Amino acid sequence: MEATIDTTQLEGIAASAFLTDVNGVDDVLAELFEHENPADVRARIDALRADDRSGLGQVPAPLERLAALRAELAEQQLDGLLVPLADEHQGEFIAKRSQRLAWLTGFGGSAGMAIVFADKAAIFVDGRYTLQVRHQVVTTAFTPVALAETSPEAWLRENLPKGARLGFDPWLHTSTGTARFRVACTEAGAELVPVQQNPVDRVWEDQPPIPLGPVMSLGQEHAGVASLEKRRQFSEGLEVAQCTASVLSAPDSIAWLLNIRGSDVPNTPLALGYAIVRLSGDIDWFVDARKIPASARAMLDSGVSILPPKDFSDRLAALAKSEGSVRVDPASAPEWIRLTLDAAGASLSAGTDLCVLPKACKNGTEIQGTRAAHIRDGAALTTFLAWLAETGPKGGVTEISAADHLYQCRRTDDKFRGLSFDTISGSGPNGAIVHYRVTPETDRALNAGDVYLVDSGAQYLDGTTDVTRTVFIGDGKGASAQAKERNTRVLKGHIAIATARFPVGTHGSQIDALARLALWEAGLDYDHGTGHGVGSYLGVHEGPQRISKQGGGVAMEPGMILSNEPGYYKEGAYGIRIENLVVVAEGSATADTERKMLEFETITLAPIDRNLIDRDLLTEVERDWLDAYHARVRETLSPLVDEGVRNWLEAVTAPI
Amino acid sequence: MEATIDTTQLEGIAASAFLTDVNGVDDVLAELFEHENPADVRARIDALRADDRSGLGQVPAPLERLAALRAELAEQQLDGLLVPLADEHQGEFIAKRSQRLAWLTGFGGSAGMAIVFADKAAIFVDGRYTLQVRHQVVTTAFTPVALAETSPEAWLRENLPKGARLGFDPWLHTSTGTARFRVACTEAGAELVPVQQNPVDRVWEDQPPIPLGPVMSLGQEHAGVASLEKRRQFSEGLEVAQCTASVLSAPDSIAWLLNIRGSDVPNTPLALGYAIVRLSGDIDWFVDARKIPASARAMLDSGVSILPPKDFSDRLAALAKSEGSVRVDPASAPEWIRLTLDAAGASLSAGTDLCVLPKACKNGTEIQGTRAAHIRDGAALTTFLAWLAETGPKGGVTEISAADHLYQCRRTDDKFRGLSFDTISGSGPNGAIVHYRVTPETDRALNAGDVYLVDSGAQYLDGTTDVTRTVFIGDGKGASAQAKERNTRVLKGHIAIATARFPVGTHGSQIDALARLALWEAGLDYDHGTGHGVGSYLGVHEGPQRISKQGGGVAMEPGMILSNEPGYYKEGAYGIRIENLVVVAEGSATADTERKMLEFETITLAPIDRNLIDRDLLTEVERDWLDAYHARVRETLSPLVDEGVRNWLEAVTAPI
Repeated sequence: MEATIDTTQLEGIAASAFLTDVNGVDDVLAELFEHENPADVRARIDALRADDRSGLGQVPAPLERLAALRAELAEQQLDGLLVPLADEHQGEFIAKRSQRLAWLTGFGGSAGMAIVFADKAAIFVDGRYTLQVRHQVVTTAFTPVALAETSPEAWLRENLPKGARLGFDPWLHTSTGTARFRVACTEAGAELVPVQQNPVDRVWEDQPPIPLGPVMSLGQEHAGVASLEKRRQFSEGLEVAQCTASVLSAPDSIAWLLNIRGSDVPNTPLALGYAIVRLSGDIDWFVDARKIPASARAMLDSGVSILPPKDFSDRLAALAKSEGSVRVDPASAPEWIRLTLDAAGASLSAGTDLCVLPKACKNGTEIQGTRAAHIRDGAALTTFLAWLAETGPKGGVTEISAADHLYQCRRTDDKFRGLSFDTISGSGPNGAIVHYRVTPETDRALNAGDVYLVDSGAQYLDGTTDVTRTVFIGDGKGASAQAKERNTRVLKGHIAIATARFPVGTHGSQIDALARLALWEAGLDYDHGTGHGVGSYLGVHEGPQRISKQGGGVAMEPGMILSNEPGYYKEGAYGIRIENLVVVAEGSATADTERKMLEFETITLAPIDRNLIDRDLLTEVERDWLDAYHARVRETLSPLVDEGVRNWLEAVTAPI
Repeated sequence: MEATIDTTQLEGIAASAFLTDVNGVDDVLAELFEHENPADVRARIDALRADDRSGLGQVPAPLERLAALRAELAEQQLDGLLVPLADEHQGEFIAKRSQRLAWLTGFGGSAGMAIVFADKAAIFVDGRYTLQVRHQVVTTAFTPVALAETSPEAWLRENLPKGARLGFDPWLHTSTGTARFRVACTEAGAELVPVQQNPVDRVWEDQPPIPLGPVMSLGQEHAGVASLEKRRQFSEGLEVAQCTASVLSAPDSIAWLLNIRGSDVPNTPLALGYAIVRLSGDIDWFVDARKIPASARAMLDSGVSILPPKDFSDRLAALAKSEGSVRVDPASAPEWIRLTLDAAGASLSAGTDLCVLPKACKNGTEIQGTRAAHIRDGAALTTFLAWLAETGPKGGVTEISAADHLYQCRRTDDKFRGLSFDTISGSGPNGAIVHYRVTPETDRALNAGDVYLVDSGAQYLDGTTDVTRTVFIGDGKGASAQAKERNTRVLKGHIAIATARFPVGTHGSQIDALARLALWEAGLDYDHGTGHGVGSYLGVHEGPQRISKQGGGVAMEPGMILSNEPGYYKEGAYGIRIENLVVVAEGSATADTERKMLEFETITLAPIDRNLIDRDLLTEVERDWLDAYHARVRETLSPLVDEGVRNWLEAVTAPI
């Protein structure tokens, strides 16, 4: 029977982020491999993954790779190459196959870039990774450069010889990003050259295959609006913009527009692919058909054509022959698309991806779904927190084991489809590292008396969650006055956002300070944004809405989901963050109300540790908010948790 | 003796904003016209002003002017002309000579633009002036266009025939502004043509002459830092920017840099002129030497050359021959400068006027001066408010007579040099018009029971003031609950800004919401910024700092002066605004302070009407702030006012 399986397909699934330990796996596999026992298929995928020959994860990466790349550059008559940490869709989470920077250098951070010349190479990292890069990369081969001090463009201006040919893979850079590099090259008298074949791919022998993560259809009960209707509105946007077609390269836009979800990359249910949407609303979706089970395909309407990715180029060229402009988003689409359309003589119209704003404004079904997902997620997190309150003080729990336990609490949910990002589990001083990701090397025990920060989230069929709680690991003495004071200030900021009321047209940057005022009063602050947009069973980081010091962006609109996550970080001691998700809602109106107002509905439900709250620092209004929130948490979650957890919840949500 | 007077100089002074009714006038005139009796000279200036033949103020303007302009356009082979409301220095307040839009159309608003073609003409105004323009302009000749709906550029795209030659005066448009019009013309297939001679000037027979307002030297006791030292720092900026010279066109920058003040335009002590600053710190100042009394000239150091304005063009051209780039601010410099440098082959470097930021950050002497000016201004305003409290309820006071009385209260101060803007004096419904300027036609009596808003400010040798108070004209019954509630919400916002504490790096847009929160809570808001920058015996509106919803701009820095002026406007009923000026100061640090913090010092001193405050709506902290502020007002001003005023002040500043 095994012989009937397409091995390359199985390898593609193994190279995807398709999870084999969540609900619904066997149904999908049974459909994709209909003559097989799904448990056998699952075992084969797991075996392929165990036998990882990609060469990734070798820290530092062997320098032979750099030598091979340089030989390939010479072959392609290039003097240098940009090696970004990016995939062909500018995703936040990328497939193993796209981890070219990690393979070449060993660097495992979430952002960075290398530039390789025949006689020198540099790796650019931001402030989070200045230490890490020195541990993971051979710095005699790749000179580390701090992005805050020197941008790659500035470095190129200093280091590019006149007349040099600098290669870049036009699939891996947006048009906006490419333009910046092109200016730098021009100023240095050099040339920015798009490569035909990525030189890293050419020398990466065991590069994982293109992921073939299975696709599912997202039913009306979760999507709320049919793809046909979404495309009708998309067409209206095209008409206003006087365009006849639009090219989409962001898989989350395509997933939203087609009401499908995939499993190609970690943490976000994306099916990597491209699309051309026409004024008629018809859409060509360029995606490997092997990813799509028959049942999912059957749910697509007749306006959707599934085409092999290899046809994308020709179809783009064909657009040039039809009349009218083609809309492409220069901030998200790969430069390759612009080059291809341009070479074919198409009339390009630069403009934001028309899915971005309607995707951000969730419909009623999506909001209902996300509320439901947050209730179940809250029950799982509360179960974890009750366990931690009991087990933590006894010792033996570590950052990794805590995160694992939390995963297990969530995993059993029917609609659970994986985490929405790698859990941040930081005890004591590790909690003060804002973007901390625990590794076996840094894993720290949770000790009685520690402040412990856990930031986690999950993907459910009906919604995406992201929640942070900071808890005190009981030691009989209680938290320090300072930790309580700081945590209470963070809580005051959290409540200020949760209760904010603001007129239509307000941008997130206008209310960001509300989250910081109580910290500012004490001469404190935190160095990250207060809130990011969140998708509906899609990206846990989603634009265009956000709450941050930075201006720009868009006004908040009803249905947008945002995080509310002020924090405070005491270097070498502890980190604090209190994060709930909120939905933008229309504010209530009275006879005296003159403006259309908006407000936030908090949807995350889990107790906020009262052991870290200085009651006297809260105003009466703030105490009322906390008590009401805790009452809601208790009433909503109690029916969903075990008796032991219920008793604990009862106690920790009592009025302060 | 009269024969010795240069009549054109006298006409130039008459055409300037030189005030003949403030202190120090005769000293200046005695020096400028040394053989004359200054009182005689003053009388001749007043007589020239009384005999105004400029044709301005005719509402609507005679259509013969439009016909003459069209004939002149045909003569110059132009199909159309832009007629902006602007002078050659992009000033907020402009000389009569530059009131070309008012002369041509009759429109008297503070912002607007006309576009004239042979067969049509349009006048563009913003929301403040949509009614006014219909009263002041012959709308069959000039079609009014609402700027919010159609920008001049958009209108041109619709109305410019292909091949048309659209004229513009490159002295009256910045390079940034010109670029926008050039794009619009290009898109319409038309050409934007710089005129050699302004066509309006050619047909405006009685156009007032170029103003020749006398210049004064601002002594070290007011300026704090010598011009030589300011230019040394300017040179450092040039060096960093890799430029060898910079052209200045903003008279407030030149006034600040040279420690001089002028009297060419109303409300701001500017001497219109241009300057070229070299890397050496030497400066060529292109200004009519007749404006500068010998004593003022004697105070200039040897690095300052005074050159006739007619030499400006040649000197710019000469810059092209020297090595290095010339810095010009495209956002403030007239396009004429760019065109002239460009034609001469100079290397241009676009960048912000290097005076803007240091001018905004007042030095210790300036801050001391502005504090002193605010104390005297506060005494004058308090004297006015005490008079109003007694006289207002009796009837007979009108908006104009109130403003006049306030002027008299201020005028007697030794260092008073005029108002910093036309007083906004609005009672009842007129107060609800945000940019209200009282005219004899709209002048309204202050009736008992009215809410009255007065926004005013003055120029003193040692500082510039701007203050708004909203007072209840007593009727024995007291203000309505609604007016008190709204005023208290505005006060809460005012206090939130006054007490704000924020880290270094914070922009005004980040704290703007603090001023609005109490209004937002009730579904209310106001449609203007919360604060603008203020100069030191310079512009009452000065960048780059501001507190507003709009992002961009710069971070607040110690020494910047800002207004703090939240408001509320009930259409058809009343307007409320509470405005004090504040200075950005370094925040106090303690052992627990982790960030460098900034805070505001309130410098405006005058009672805030407690008749309009609902005590119960204030928190304890807010009540404490108000009481402490009032105690400071009382203690500081009591020694400076008459006994009657002192007694009144004692009563109205009692704890709430």
